[in-house]
Amino acid sequence: MGEMVVRVDHLAEERRKAQFDVSAMKVAWAGSRRELEISDRMARIVASDPVFRKDNRAMLGRKELFKNTLKKAEHAWRRIIELHLTEEEASKLRAAVDEPCYMDLHWGMFIPAIKGQGTDEQQKKWLPLAKKMQIIGCYAQTELGHGSNVQGLETSATFDLKSDEFVIHSPTLSSSKWWPGGLGKISTHAVVYARLITNGEDHGVHGFIVQLRSLDDHSPLPGITIGDIGTKFGNGAYNTMDNGVLQFDNVRIPRDQMLMRISQVTRDGKYMVSNVPRHLVYGTMVFVRQSIVQDASIALSRAVCIAVRYSAVRRQFGSQKGGLESQVIDYKTQQSRLLPLLASAYAFRFVGEWLKWLYTDVTQRLQANDFSTLPEAHACTAGLKSLTTSVTANGIEECRKLCGGHGYLCSSGLPELFAVYVPTCTYEGDNNVMLLQVARFLMKTVSSLASGKPPVGTASYFARAQHLMQCNCEVHNADDWLKPSVILEAFEARAARMAIACAKNISKISDLEEGFSEFSIDLVDVAVAHCQLIVVSKFIEKLKQDIPGNGVKEVLQVLCCVYALSLLHKHSGDFLSTGCINPKQASLANEQLRSLYSQVRPNAVALVDSFNYTDHYLNSTLGRYDGNVYPTLYEEAWKDPLNDTVVPDGYQEYIRPLLKQQLTSRATRL
Amino acid sequence: MGEMVVRVDHLAEERRKAQFDVSAMKVAWAGSRRELEISDRMARIVASDPVFRKDNRAMLGRKELFKNTLKKAEHAWRRIIELHLTEEEASKLRAAVDEPCYMDLHWGMFIPAIKGQGTDEQQKKWLPLAKKMQIIGCYAQTELGHGSNVQGLETSATFDLKSDEFVIHSPTLSSSKWWPGGLGKISTHAVVYARLITNGEDHGVHGFIVQLRSLDDHSPLPGITIGDIGTKFGNGAYNTMDNGVLQFDNVRIPRDQMLMRISQVTRDGKYMVSNVPRHLVYGTMVFVRQSIVQDASIALSRAVCIAVRYSAVRRQFGSQKGGLESQVIDYKTQQSRLLPLLASAYAFRFVGEWLKWLYTDVTQRLQANDFSTLPEAHACTAGLKSLTTSVTANGIEECRKLCGGHGYLCSSGLPELFAVYVPTCTYEGDNNVMLLQVARFLMKTVSSLASGKPPVGTASYFARAQHLMQCNCEVHNADDWLKPSVILEAFEARAARMAIACAKNISKISDLEEGFSEFSIDLVDVAVAHCQLIVVSKFIEKLKQDIPGNGVKEVLQVLCCVYALSLLHKHSGDFLSTGCINPKQASLANEQLRSLYSQVRPNAVALVDSFNYTDHYLNSTLGRYDGNVYPTLYEEAWKDPLNDTVVPDGYQEYIRPLLKQQLTSRATRL
Repeated sequence: MGEMVVRVDHLAEERRKAQFDVSAMKVAWAGSRRELEISDRMARIVASDPVFRKDNRAMLGRKELFKNTLKKAEHAWRRIIELHLTEEEASKLRAAVDEPCYMDLHWGMFIPAIKGQGTDEQQKKWLPLAKKMQIIGCYAQTELGHGSNVQGLETSATFDLKSDEFVIHSPTLSSSKWWPGGLGKISTHAVVYARLITNGEDHGVHGFIVQLRSLDDHSPLPGITIGDIGTKFGNGAYNTMDNGVLQFDNVRIPRDQMLMRISQVTRDGKYMVSNVPRHLVYGTMVFVRQSIVQDASIALSRAVCIAVRYSAVRRQFGSQKGGLESQVIDYKTQQSRLLPLLASAYAFRFVGEWLKWLYTDVTQRLQANDFSTLPEAHACTAGLKSLTTSVTANGIEECRKLCGGHGYLCSSGLPELFAVYVPTCTYEGDNNVMLLQVARFLMKTVSSLASGKPPVGTASYFARAQHLMQCNCEVHNADDWLKPSVILEAFEARAARMAIACAKNISKISDLEEGFSEFSIDLVDVAVAHCQLIVVSKFIEKLKQDIPGNGVKEVLQVLCCVYALSLLHKHSGDFLSTGCINPKQASLANEQLRSLYSQVRPNAVALVDSFNYTDHYLNSTLGRYDGNVYPTLYEEAWKDPLNDTVVPDGYQEYIRPLLKQQLTSRATRL
Repeated sequence: MGEMVVRVDHLAEERRKAQFDVSAMKVAWAGSRRELEISDRMARIVASDPVFRKDNRAMLGRKELFKNTLKKAEHAWRRIIELHLTEEEASKLRAAVDEPCYMDLHWGMFIPAIKGQGTDEQQKKWLPLAKKMQIIGCYAQTELGHGSNVQGLETSATFDLKSDEFVIHSPTLSSSKWWPGGLGKISTHAVVYARLITNGEDHGVHGFIVQLRSLDDHSPLPGITIGDIGTKFGNGAYNTMDNGVLQFDNVRIPRDQMLMRISQVTRDGKYMVSNVPRHLVYGTMVFVRQSIVQDASIALSRAVCIAVRYSAVRRQFGSQKGGLESQVIDYKTQQSRLLPLLASAYAFRFVGEWLKWLYTDVTQRLQANDFSTLPEAHACTAGLKSLTTSVTANGIEECRKLCGGHGYLCSSGLPELFAVYVPTCTYEGDNNVMLLQVARFLMKTVSSLASGKPPVGTASYFARAQHLMQCNCEVHNADDWLKPSVILEAFEARAARMAIACAKNISKISDLEEGFSEFSIDLVDVAVAHCQLIVVSKFIEKLKQDIPGNGVKEVLQVLCCVYALSLLHKHSGDFLSTGCINPKQASLANEQLRSLYSQVRPNAVALVDSFNYTDHYLNSTLGRYDGNVYPTLYEEAWKDPLNDTVVPDGYQEYIRPLLKQQLTSRATRL
């Protein structure tokens, strides 16, 4: 949208209506005053720098788009150095630039892989090069024919005793590395995952540092075929990233480029496993997935911010005698679709905050050789990754639809947000595969109840399974649904009953795996019920803490109930079929929900202001802070390349002959 | 994907498994042997003509893309003339070209508007010009600030008695025409909707034929500001269309360019309404919406075709001792997401077929001045438009996710299919607004039950309301759920009970409009229940007819049950809370559903082959008929513009300085 003269605030009236302290809510959302300050400062640096302009992104061709991204990445790095930013600040600045690029993989995957899997010596050699960006790395794991199943990878790394080297090779087309970001056109190095073979023996998949391109002229090294895998969903979106294809034709690397922290190959070709616990790998997974949950709350809140503001600006129908039409946000049907998403954004934010704590806890335990909570923590993060990203992907598209026709324009910001977000549902663990892992953990939890082993953490409600199987919901009027204990017990009972019923069904089938397969559809439902319970319970826990600011806790309490009761409505089949609630109670929940929507309504705009997003970050004609939507839409339209000329290219060849009835058949013209 | 040497059929084994006659199913899908023959012939003409190539669409910049579309449109028109195609054939050929362009609006909206609203004289003057394409027209209704609410339009057409002209004017920014397809760069004429003002009196919105551009050099006529509204969601997709913005600065047109079939302005400025029934407008709506339902089944079946074939090709996990991994389509969780969509595609096809009949019936009745069925037919088409397009939009995205990571590549065909489809949920009646209209119709139906007026058509089950309010579901074992009568009664009881409960709630509020508003969320659910019942019942009716071909009817019966029972599972909260079924019966439905999935499984590939789509039409690396997915993905990747050079543009400026630690601060360099 570029710079603009400050105009009237069309949403001022909405902001006056708010019943809480927005600046205090900003702190609650950011996590702390300090985090708010850093995010805010980084966002402003980016927003005020014309190099980081992104409103033209959807109109650029792939090459132009990509080059522009390289420019931004270089400029961001330059600013990070000039401003002496800390690692935390640098990472927030990159997030504010809001454009996927090779840097994400370099900092987010390549460096952590070396840190996690490299020996001290390897770290000493490679990390300084990487941190100064003398080399650029990516993470080459998935293959054309192999995604989620890492054990199915085909790329081989065969140890050659004579030369003390590994020979990296792609034996088939389906073994081509495929998808790694930053690989296609930019990375000079990669951590490559390949089957380690020594003396003809296959030791499974291991990581290797492989140089891909010349550091002098960037040309691919001998034996390496490399390129981009092609255009992806959306305008701009992930097309700023060079997801790549890579094939090895017997490429040789020195033995010391196998990442050897966990297992080694010695000079004489012996394979040895070190005493570093493999569990560390799960610690990394917990870290990556908790950050995905954080990002889900950001992406969802961004879409909700746009949709809430535009719903307050937009008017339609219901005009009384030639007066203004009604604000769209005043329609109950709009509220019932929009406000649960607003509540979800807050819910995900708080569960993400808790996951940060969980990660710290797991790390400390791992260091003390305590692996007892790891399966629970792993299931919990896998499940929340799946739940929050699925809801966010669908939620962004729902917000787009809630903006009516104009949401379909790229200038609304929503199409690009959707297209850039959706891969999150597939990468770092396909969401469906994740839910099945959670379900397996729950089935194990259920089956070990008899053994007296107490369930831990987010699964500890199973210790009260006996009570939960027979408790009665204590709701007699709509206001009973405002009690956190009532909500919590309903969600616990639902999850426990579904899990135990499913375990019973599976136990009837003699072969356990066959049982899992036969009831996998039910297992997915069980996992979802469990994960929703986690989010609800962490929201409730959050509200037990001190949250400063006038009216802040009160409005969050309303949002918490909206989150829980809208889920209860959506999944009423679960609650009713397990007898956790009766039809009358379901109907009282709906009644309460309608009333809660009315309570959120006056706070809606202030609740999205609390996300503290700049207009640059939102990049949306519809979501502007000042609500000045229509003139902006109009101005943006004229920037489209099709408007470069009044008469379009192609008129002379393809339109005029039509109009003038001068179509000659091609045969004649040839 | 261009031409390719015929290779092995990787899906041959799948095709051998089929238990029905595919060629007979093709006829059942197409509606008749004749329709199959025409579609097939048109699809082949398009697929074999290199001008209609579309595999490069996602990589083109907007201008290049648009020019290419103009070329295709001109070429299609040329072929239509050369081959002396009938109107039906021509329309199927354009559909096979599969690229939105100005022709759609010219043939689909401009010409029908003149036919429907023009006097005989006006038709005689304008239709020959339009049909020969000596003029190109579009349909300029929606405005920047006004979408669904046609009565809120602001553009004015003021009669000037002195000159016998109308003065067309855009009084505000928000009155700019906005969205009309074909308007931005191509149309020479438009049917413009504007408030008719004579003698200072506002007669509401009427249609006017307005010339926009010079027929000599295509430049906009004086007083007309016109352009494209900018880039839309997706690569290719609807960016081939010049959706436009248009402003009038006191543009004058002769009086006889007001479309005067329904109302006239005389030479002396008198406004008169003719005796042609206004109901005709609803007839047109019924027509447009039934064709949208047809298109929904096509778009959904196309996505399902890609996802089913690729799910049969793709293997993941579950390999036994180094053998092949399992086909993804064999996983129950994949089946539970994919097969209900396959069933929905067939269900929508058949309900679309029935809607064609309904349109004929309505038209005949209108001609006989019988308006009795019009409200029911209108509600029915509005509701089915909403239901089928929402399911289709979500279903395409679900199919994309079911293809894993590769579904995110444009070459899968799914991102573009989604992006080009989603506006259907908004245009021709926003889906949510449509459902509220249906709900109002249902509330009226309920309230007139007491009056003894019998409900008609798809609402006639309300005549049995008393029975439906108290009937008990007769399901005792899983096989009882295979009985059409049992399914039908459950769906009827659910819809009736929800509608009647809602009507009761509304009646408690003294102001009817307030009641509608307060319970609008429930009203939407009522409308959905009613519409799902229609689809289920029309599928069941279809199966009572003769359907030739070995095994054809049998497999359709299985699909019909999959459709109904998967809905019952998804909405079990409705069925349980209204007491239409009990928890045990819900669980038996799920059991039956699992067994039905196994019955569909061997027929899945043959069921999508029956859609008879060419590889050109699918335009998908993953959905190829021969299942040769991975080599095709690999070949396609190299065609991306980023692969034009080995070292990417931008390396010298933005990558090399990084690697060589030669970042000089901008300040120094300036």
